[in-house]
Amino acid sequence: MAVYTDVAADELADFLKDYEIGELLSYKGIAEGVENSNFLLHTTSGSFILTLYEKRVAKGDLPFFLSLMTHLASRGVNCPQPVKDKSGEALRTLAGRPAAIITFLEGVWPRKPNAAHCAGAGKVLAETHLAGADFAMSRANALSVSGWRPLFDQAAARANEVQSGLHDFLGAELDYLESGVWPQHLPQGVIHADLFPDNVFFLGDRVSGIIDFTFACTDMFAYDVGICLNAWCFEADYSFNVTKARALLSAYGRERPMSKAEEDALPLLARGSALRFLLTRLVDFLNVPKGALVRPKDPLEYVRKLRFHQSVSSIRDYGVLV
Amino acid sequence: MAVYTDVAADELADFLKDYEIGELLSYKGIAEGVENSNFLLHTTSGSFILTLYEKRVAKGDLPFFLSLMTHLASRGVNCPQPVKDKSGEALRTLAGRPAAIITFLEGVWPRKPNAAHCAGAGKVLAETHLAGADFAMSRANALSVSGWRPLFDQAAARANEVQSGLHDFLGAELDYLESGVWPQHLPQGVIHADLFPDNVFFLGDRVSGIIDFTFACTDMFAYDVGICLNAWCFEADYSFNVTKARALLSAYGRERPMSKAEEDALPLLARGSALRFLLTRLVDFLNVPKGALVRPKDPLEYVRKLRFHQSVSSIRDYGVLV
Repeated sequence: MAVYTDVAADELADFLKDYEIGELLSYKGIAEGVENSNFLLHTTSGSFILTLYEKRVAKGDLPFFLSLMTHLASRGVNCPQPVKDKSGEALRTLAGRPAAIITFLEGVWPRKPNAAHCAGAGKVLAETHLAGADFAMSRANALSVSGWRPLFDQAAARANEVQSGLHDFLGAELDYLESGVWPQHLPQGVIHADLFPDNVFFLGDRVSGIIDFTFACTDMFAYDVGICLNAWCFEADYSFNVTKARALLSAYGRERPMSKAEEDALPLLARGSALRFLLTRLVDFLNVPKGALVRPKDPLEYVRKLRFHQSVSSIRDYGVLV
Repeated sequence: MAVYTDVAADELADFLKDYEIGELLSYKGIAEGVENSNFLLHTTSGSFILTLYEKRVAKGDLPFFLSLMTHLASRGVNCPQPVKDKSGEALRTLAGRPAAIITFLEGVWPRKPNAAHCAGAGKVLAETHLAGADFAMSRANALSVSGWRPLFDQAAARANEVQSGLHDFLGAELDYLESGVWPQHLPQGVIHADLFPDNVFFLGDRVSGIIDFTFACTDMFAYDVGICLNAWCFEADYSFNVTKARALLSAYGRERPMSKAEEDALPLLARGSALRFLLTRLVDFLNVPKGALVRPKDPLEYVRKLRFHQSVSSIRDYGVLV
């Protein structure tokens, strides 16, 4: 949570003259999103989010994210929509950063997801996978197997500072996942790749929409399901809640039934996704810049999650009756 | 800028049931305010600010702040208004903190104030002083002369780590201001005591209102003017802009003419206010907790400002023709 780049009021008012969204009434930096600076704007025509993309986001990827949001909405997935300026551009520059305005999505994200929330997440994940099926663009997943070794190399020398034995634990897991076991032929398409609770908004018990496509890419659908198992189904004490997992997987399956091959691969994909978040968190944790305004997330949470998935032998251990 | 305390969505929705402000649509932690946690709420009836008061704010002072906002608005000063719950209470408890909901004030604060902004600040400051004249409550200024020695004592041993010679510079200034020179009989009343640019909102060139009464107290009006000279009239390179000062002081004087005694005291009061911000920033700077999400403000900015005021011999040096 942070605002890395502030914007002057007159600069923003000038910027908005190129849009047809009314006069600026107020803007507040909001404490969400760890990668970018986000402002909630009120104008005479409504509420909007202004995002300034900071350097960790590759500018070349932005058209993919923005087009995807438009595409998903056209297929019925409620998500923020890029607002184009008078010349038809959604991606602009402000305060020296790539910048985009998107519509504001009402809704609140569940700080303590219950099983109904998990079912909502599973359903909207499947809907997103189906809606993306005919999306023309693609984007490689830089944070899949081939991206993990470079992350490990960045963190390896200091991994044991975080937890004794962590270096060898990570090395062994990485060796295993690189040994040819990673699935190659499961159904693929656009995945969100970061559908944590703070990216799924609810109004009452219903999902009002999903946000933050900064990690969206082309990869296996079942990998996205694995990410959600990690993001939604563990308790604060890292115990795995099979009721929540069953709710999530059942809701997903009602929209998009998984194949037997996908179900069989799920424990491995969940391991991989746990390793992915463990590695990025570890690198962030070891590289907090002096004076940083963002508290790094705890990498050890994902050591616990990874160990759990290592112990899983089939999708039955996630609570699914097959 | 920070959100120290997060609130769960269901907890907030429950809390709002005691109010008549509609259903919760969204809430975002906002990156403003260094003392408290602030959330921008959207409900079916509009926008509101929810503040959770963190421990640096004394709970006993909150009724003063909330009543003052109501009083000032009743006298024509536009500022956020406390929203009472169904039982008439404005001050509640949420997430273990004292909490209040106030109306949302549209407007943007000037990141780079020009002379017109300074005039707006001077005018609204005087209006606030006049509007507060018949406010019944009072609150001592804990950050006036008698409060500075304890702050100095907290920082003294390590002051020279921040700048060589700072300990003796502060000690000498404090000795001087405590030597009986501080004014005793100037006009007093409710002062804002923190009317920095981020607390004055504009729509176009017009002030739309003022916010953040967390430091409001009973003290000399001219001391509040001295605070504003420090807050509004220095450039980024710490040079003093007499055009801005003249604009601020003239606009103030048109609403509430200062007496000769107040004008004569202004350089001294500006010195005192510079020392007050210097000391609190120094203490904060030396006591940043590990893992803090707030970057402390630079205390040395106020060394430069204090030295400027030490060189001032009369209000003429602030650009005022007397």
